Amino acid sequence: MTQLINPEREQWADLLKRPQQDYESLNATVETVFKTVQKQGDQAILNYTKTFDGVALSELNVSKEEIQAAEAQLPESLKQAILKAKSNIEAFHKAQRTQPIVVQTQPGVRCWQQKRPIQSVGLYIPGGTAPLFSTVLMLAIPAKIAGCKNIVLCSPPNSSGKIANEILAAAALCGVEQIYKIGGIQAVAGMTFGTATIPKVSKVFGPGNQYVTAAKQYATTFGVAIDMPAGPSELLIMADASANPAFVASDLLSQAEHGTDSQVILVTTHRPLLDAVSQEIQQQKRVLSRKSIVEQALNNMKLIYLETPEIAVELINEYGPEHYIISTSNNDFYVNQVQNAGSVFIGDFTPESAGDYASGTNHTLPTNGYAKAYSGVNLDSFLKSITFQEITKEGLLDLGQTIEIMAESEGLMAHKNAVSIRLKSLRNES
Amino acid sequence: MTQLINPEREQWADLLKRPQQDYESLNATVETVFKTVQKQGDQAILNYTKTFDGVALSELNVSKEEIQAAEAQLPESLKQAILKAKSNIEAFHKAQRTQPIVVQTQPGVRCWQQKRPIQSVGLYIPGGTAPLFSTVLMLAIPAKIAGCKNIVLCSPPNSSGKIANEILAAAALCGVEQIYKIGGIQAVAGMTFGTATIPKVSKVFGPGNQYVTAAKQYATTFGVAIDMPAGPSELLIMADASANPAFVASDLLSQAEHGTDSQVILVTTHRPLLDAVSQEIQQQKRVLSRKSIVEQALNNMKLIYLETPEIAVELINEYGPEHYIISTSNNDFYVNQVQNAGSVFIGDFTPESAGDYASGTNHTLPTNGYAKAYSGVNLDSFLKSITFQEITKEGLLDLGQTIEIMAESEGLMAHKNAVSIRLKSLRNES
Repeated sequence: MTQLINPEREQWADLLKRPQQDYESLNATVETVFKTVQKQGDQAILNYTKTFDGVALSELNVSKEEIQAAEAQLPESLKQAILKAKSNIEAFHKAQRTQPIVVQTQPGVRCWQQKRPIQSVGLYIPGGTAPLFSTVLMLAIPAKIAGCKNIVLCSPPNSSGKIANEILAAAALCGVEQIYKIGGIQAVAGMTFGTATIPKVSKVFGPGNQYVTAAKQYATTFGVAIDMPAGPSELLIMADASANPAFVASDLLSQAEHGTDSQVILVTTHRPLLDAVSQEIQQQKRVLSRKSIVEQALNNMKLIYLETPEIAVELINEYGPEHYIISTSNNDFYVNQVQNAGSVFIGDFTPESAGDYASGTNHTLPTNGYAKAYSGVNLDSFLKSITFQEITKEGLLDLGQTIEIMAESEGLMAHKNAVSIRLKSLRNES
Repeated sequence: MTQLINPEREQWADLLKRPQQDYESLNATVETVFKTVQKQGDQAILNYTKTFDGVALSELNVSKEEIQAAEAQLPESLKQAILKAKSNIEAFHKAQRTQPIVVQTQPGVRCWQQKRPIQSVGLYIPGGTAPLFSTVLMLAIPAKIAGCKNIVLCSPPNSSGKIANEILAAAALCGVEQIYKIGGIQAVAGMTFGTATIPKVSKVFGPGNQYVTAAKQYATTFGVAIDMPAGPSELLIMADASANPAFVASDLLSQAEHGTDSQVILVTTHRPLLDAVSQEIQQQKRVLSRKSIVEQALNNMKLIYLETPEIAVELINEYGPEHYIISTSNNDFYVNQVQNAGSVFIGDFTPESAGDYASGTNHTLPTNGYAKAYSGVNLDSFLKSITFQEITKEGLLDLGQTIEIMAESEGLMAHKNAVSIRLKSLRNES
């Protein structure tokens, strides 16, 4: 934990620096796995699953029976919680549906924009000690609402060759049927090229470790789109004298438990809050289960005092946090001024974990400053816009010369001719 | 030109294959330029401009005087054409503005989504023999409408150290003021890292040769977003007995003149059209100025006869053309069935060149089958969505347990605690 009092603007870049992500050392492995999967398909994936996950599978796909068994074993309280979260996430993402935009740009020239679902999408759900089934909801629900035809879900098998019940049950509750026990680079490679078992997809979504991140980046060189580049999770809290130090500390700790490289920042215009929050953190962290992860993440935590809300806002926009909690006596100011952030949590009773699970917003968000250029996952992430245009005879008679002049100026005479030949025919008609 | 009659479905993938794009051989050069620009800034860019563009510049930025001189030299007819195109492009892109989406997902839980402009964007405009000033309009107009604060334009200098008047004048007409005489890899590297002269940007837009394409791909590993991956330009025309063979031929030729690797495809359900269009192409191509380019592109051209509209639509969606012209007696059917395409041109009087210049739609479109996952450039390309949520005490009292159960099931106790500590405080209050 570092406390910083009015750091100079020249220090900001250094202060807000994220950990360097260097995947170059992984590139050789990623390339080998991709090339082998491209050539040998399922057999390569089975081999890599044995090597990397330590489990010999006979089948990659999860059977209907396995899914039904997982659903049956889901505790009722968790099922109800998932259904409630699902209902909120659905409500928010359904509201993001748009109508076609139709414009007559000039008489006889009608242009429109309409969205269509990406036909095949791949959802990657990490495995590991805790089953992150909430990510299933965050990816499968908008994919379903968008109308994606093929929704493929990959998640690594555990040492007994299974995917956690919670993940399978969440997928089933969201209507996902194509589920594969594949993790890591080989999962991304499989969805990139397609195999006898795994369908080829056009876009891969979802978080993952450094191997998955490097594999997704590499997949883009084969024409596969990805949701966004990944990085360690982040939280920045803006709090003033009105904030509750215990609440603030609980949110900082919830971010810290994500991983040892989690980025945790408190910005305040109320200097006493620095110590008050530090003390609360010491207090609250004692009882946490993932204490060693939390401790390491807290080592990098920054507690920053800045004199005015205006300066605070500048620093926050320069950082562009993935998660941004605002707990001040003037929340509207901070909301209006935010330029770069993934998701914003407003007020004393909106902890980040509400958005992580159940408020309705998506939790797949841009880290690492990507909020400056990327949106978090939303309904549009599963759609693409197509433009259409239809020009009448009268429209072309009016617009034709404009196109001819511009095409000729760019030296593209066949472009010009495509108009001239039509204008000639129209003038002959009349 | 190859004529194909009812090709078997198993042949489609081969038939529709795009030329392999292999940038691996360029990677070493791209990496070296990036590293040198990162270290040496402007000096590196000046050196590379001398090496690659063969011109020794003293200054990288274009002065106000140069811009004014360019505007003064623009022929009045071209200026009027540009202004007319600008007006249509503005009308269509302004109509793409959206309102915030606000949803109360459950009582006391309010979520909303609002877009904000990407603060800094870089527009790359290729140089070469013909000045492609139309791309300035296609990128600068939506950037301005979106409200991007820094709009940086880079274009390579010609042998006299200048950018074409048309490009400078178009930029000025669109209100772009930061213009730099930099091309190729060094331009993308400069915008990625920023130098003393060139501002660092968050997203790079625009077409370019193989070096620019490889550089944009590499830039993404430094956290810079790009509009989309690039590939050779494409046109697919769906035409039946109602189509005018001369018009169809003129459109195919306009695509062929883009480059030797242009992809040109005709699909028809009316077999006699194959020969009719071939003959028209022979006729029309005689007078074209870029004849040798056209000839080479036509060598790869495919003329495909398919028996039914249903089969045709399947093949077209499997291809996912950048430009898609529909000239049939049942255009609505093809419009409704299109799943994958960049921009669609409907009817006899809507040549592709209308959208390339002046109908109002954007001409920066997904090639290479990327239409399966990517949209063309549109207003949203210059914006990002931020989500917000605000939960009341009552809202958290109702939703809190859902979050606690889910967090606990994922083994994230600090996430749970951020809710529990608030619920406890609320219960103590009442």
